[in-house]
Amino acid sequence: MTETGEETRIRTAQDDAADIYAEDGSIRSDFLAMVGAAIADRDLLFLRQNVARLHESELGDLIEAIQPDQRIALVRLLGDDFDLTALTEVDEAIRLQIVEHLPNAQIAAAIGDLDSDDAVYILEDLDHEDREEILAQLPFTERVRLRRALDYPESSAGRRMQTEFVAVPPFWTVGQTIDYMRDEEDLPETFTQIFVIDPTFKLLGTVDLDRILRTKRQVKVETIMRETTHPIPAEMDQEEAAQLFEQYDLLSAAVVDENERLVGVLTIDDVVDVIQEEAEEDLMRLGGVGDEELSDSVVETSRSRVPWLAVNLFTAFVSASVISLFEATIEQVVALAILMPIVAGMGGNAGSQTMTVTVRALATRNLDIHNAWRVARREAGVGLINGVLFGCLVGTVAALWFQDVSIGGLITTAMLINMFAAAMAGITIPILLHRAGADPAVSSAVFVTAITDTTGFFSFLGLATWWFMSS
Amino acid sequence: MTETGEETRIRTAQDDAADIYAEDGSIRSDFLAMVGAAIADRDLLFLRQNVARLHESELGDLIEAIQPDQRIALVRLLGDDFDLTALTEVDEAIRLQIVEHLPNAQIAAAIGDLDSDDAVYILEDLDHEDREEILAQLPFTERVRLRRALDYPESSAGRRMQTEFVAVPPFWTVGQTIDYMRDEEDLPETFTQIFVIDPTFKLLGTVDLDRILRTKRQVKVETIMRETTHPIPAEMDQEEAAQLFEQYDLLSAAVVDENERLVGVLTIDDVVDVIQEEAEEDLMRLGGVGDEELSDSVVETSRSRVPWLAVNLFTAFVSASVISLFEATIEQVVALAILMPIVAGMGGNAGSQTMTVTVRALATRNLDIHNAWRVARREAGVGLINGVLFGCLVGTVAALWFQDVSIGGLITTAMLINMFAAAMAGITIPILLHRAGADPAVSSAVFVTAITDTTGFFSFLGLATWWFMSS
Repeated sequence: MTETGEETRIRTAQDDAADIYAEDGSIRSDFLAMVGAAIADRDLLFLRQNVARLHESELGDLIEAIQPDQRIALVRLLGDDFDLTALTEVDEAIRLQIVEHLPNAQIAAAIGDLDSDDAVYILEDLDHEDREEILAQLPFTERVRLRRALDYPESSAGRRMQTEFVAVPPFWTVGQTIDYMRDEEDLPETFTQIFVIDPTFKLLGTVDLDRILRTKRQVKVETIMRETTHPIPAEMDQEEAAQLFEQYDLLSAAVVDENERLVGVLTIDDVVDVIQEEAEEDLMRLGGVGDEELSDSVVETSRSRVPWLAVNLFTAFVSASVISLFEATIEQVVALAILMPIVAGMGGNAGSQTMTVTVRALATRNLDIHNAWRVARREAGVGLINGVLFGCLVGTVAALWFQDVSIGGLITTAMLINMFAAAMAGITIPILLHRAGADPAVSSAVFVTAITDTTGFFSFLGLATWWFMSS
Repeated sequence: MTETGEETRIRTAQDDAADIYAEDGSIRSDFLAMVGAAIADRDLLFLRQNVARLHESELGDLIEAIQPDQRIALVRLLGDDFDLTALTEVDEAIRLQIVEHLPNAQIAAAIGDLDSDDAVYILEDLDHEDREEILAQLPFTERVRLRRALDYPESSAGRRMQTEFVAVPPFWTVGQTIDYMRDEEDLPETFTQIFVIDPTFKLLGTVDLDRILRTKRQVKVETIMRETTHPIPAEMDQEEAAQLFEQYDLLSAAVVDENERLVGVLTIDDVVDVIQEEAEEDLMRLGGVGDEELSDSVVETSRSRVPWLAVNLFTAFVSASVISLFEATIEQVVALAILMPIVAGMGGNAGSQTMTVTVRALATRNLDIHNAWRVARREAGVGLINGVLFGCLVGTVAALWFQDVSIGGLITTAMLINMFAAAMAGITIPILLHRAGADPAVSSAVFVTAITDTTGFFSFLGLATWWFMSS
């Protein structure tokens, strides 16, 4: 991309920012209509001036907003003017749909212009054959770089890193370094630090750009570099790398191979995406949904939601069989059937409050052996206080409703028992799952509900059976 | 902070990183024991060498891990060697506890060394009197800067911005700019871009540091600056600002006042914290918990969880009264009481799956008017498919269990109805709340559960009443 080309793109993107979005953050309907008409009319002039020059994330939003067949038509019409980077901003299903409709030669030509991390992001979803065909059409160094990144495991730092970076030897002066950057054409599109390496590419240190700018020309870079810079092993999981960024407020970090040689750089913009994804993953898992995307089909979505429903169905039958133990009691006192969902449901709500706090605290590493005991005691206290509070409330209402003090007393006791059990289940189940190496966000809810349902039904119906049958 | 001081701090922090943390990311128990002993023995040498030199986030983790009385003792013992920045890394309750025990004079002295965004972060939690007393002890320019940031609304970009930045006039050359940065002592600790302003401080443009380093000395900065740079109004909500950072992959952005004059800079490290907080907020709200922190007391926690439980209790009584409509039927066919929680519960699970996806998609702005209709149709399809699937499954088991085909047929139909209703409630309720300007994460769950419970009980018991009472 030429200097002028880049500047135009940036200016346009920002001038248009107010233009293409409506108040609520969605793309303006009249802009969508104009784009739709331009696609139908094959109006290349309009598309080049108003679509091709959008910022990659705006183009991504536009692609998501238009109809599937318009997407293919748009990308075909724009041809080389279509910025492939926009595909890193859309749902996986949409990305695959578009890439499958593009000739491999066109993808190969476009991939050469991308930053390596964006190129890898697009290539990693393709099937093996297409990927190899595209790689084969790239220049040698480009191909080697991308293949190296693709060889690292999925979700590793090596997959997310950018292989373009500026590296200089330690004996260079600040002046030499600046002169090199002024003359060299082939620099990364943007960067915030440069790396200092020895002749074997072993990482020696890092220098932030502001440090270079504050330092006199004759000073050697080795005297201003920082020695250890959280080098990130390429094999490290991206989530762990993101935690390092958060903890030490990094903007970018060197990625090194097993021999501590510099192979790439991980930048904060990719890390922000990882942080978002991880937080979203926890939320989705707690809600019983997996990696689904809004663009998934009906069948894909149904299928992905079946496992969680199936496991919950099993626990529902367990609670039903607990109820069936007390068939005879319910037959005599139907009020029990009316009230029992309250006991189970309130326990479930209290349990999910505690569980949510626990799962989140485990994910952010705020809960560990040093405070687990204190937090568990707190949750026990909360369970007791709210158990007493809501137990008495429900008991009073139930006694008035059914004009029966004993029913009020029974449900108060059962609520207290169940809300305490809920608190204990909400804190211990996620911790035990975490200790066992499982992801507490995935399976905690099922276990907690199983415990609050069975405890709720068993305590209420059991107490009632003992009371009514013995009196 | 001096050059050498900073370098030592950074080096030490990183060398120790492997040292103070155990495998699971918590602080090593033996390190905690050593710190505890040093505090008890008033071993200043140990504390200065091993605690004062930790990175701020490590020191924050350490403070959270030790006992409340140890925290105060530690901060008192370290005195001026205690890096107040560490307080930005701990829970609010802990921060307040420590700050309350420090003399205002000591805080004032320490605040002067902080970046303005960190200083504001600590000052904003203090009560008015303490804050004024501390501000009064600061140098004039420092005081004016901090007060200006504190005057902006809570959670605004103005509160989170850093008031230290590098700004130059447009007619300066790259060479002049570099020479200025080499000579000027009072620069921000780190920065990635400089700003171009007119004599009235009006923002003209931005230049990334890498652009300066690639450009010849004689070039004027106005020719390499980018004109529009997403200037962020100081009044803008931090969440909205964070969305701009995410959308345009920004590292920092200018914050301007109502006259478009540059007042500060918002940096990605603060934005990462905002993104984390917002994602966490959605997760916590969906789980029925508010802004609570792990360090909150039993009473605070109980109280904060009562409102959600109370609202849920109300809906629980509504479903109980639905059940009570069918008292007579249940008395005759107790199997209904045993099976009815399955119908309600499975609807609740399916509803919460759809609701989770919807709430998240609304929060990330992936769901808008352009795809709402398509997503709603998809959810309807998923509800029908999974309703048929689980309806038949549950119907078969129920028919076998109670040796009664009609019970199987009734529960199959009721499950189908309820899982379809759950899907519709899961998608429409969050969208309606969002349209009405409410936060769908806060209240969707209550409404969805109310609908799945009442629909579940009403359809199952209603159908059964019609079937058994009319036959």
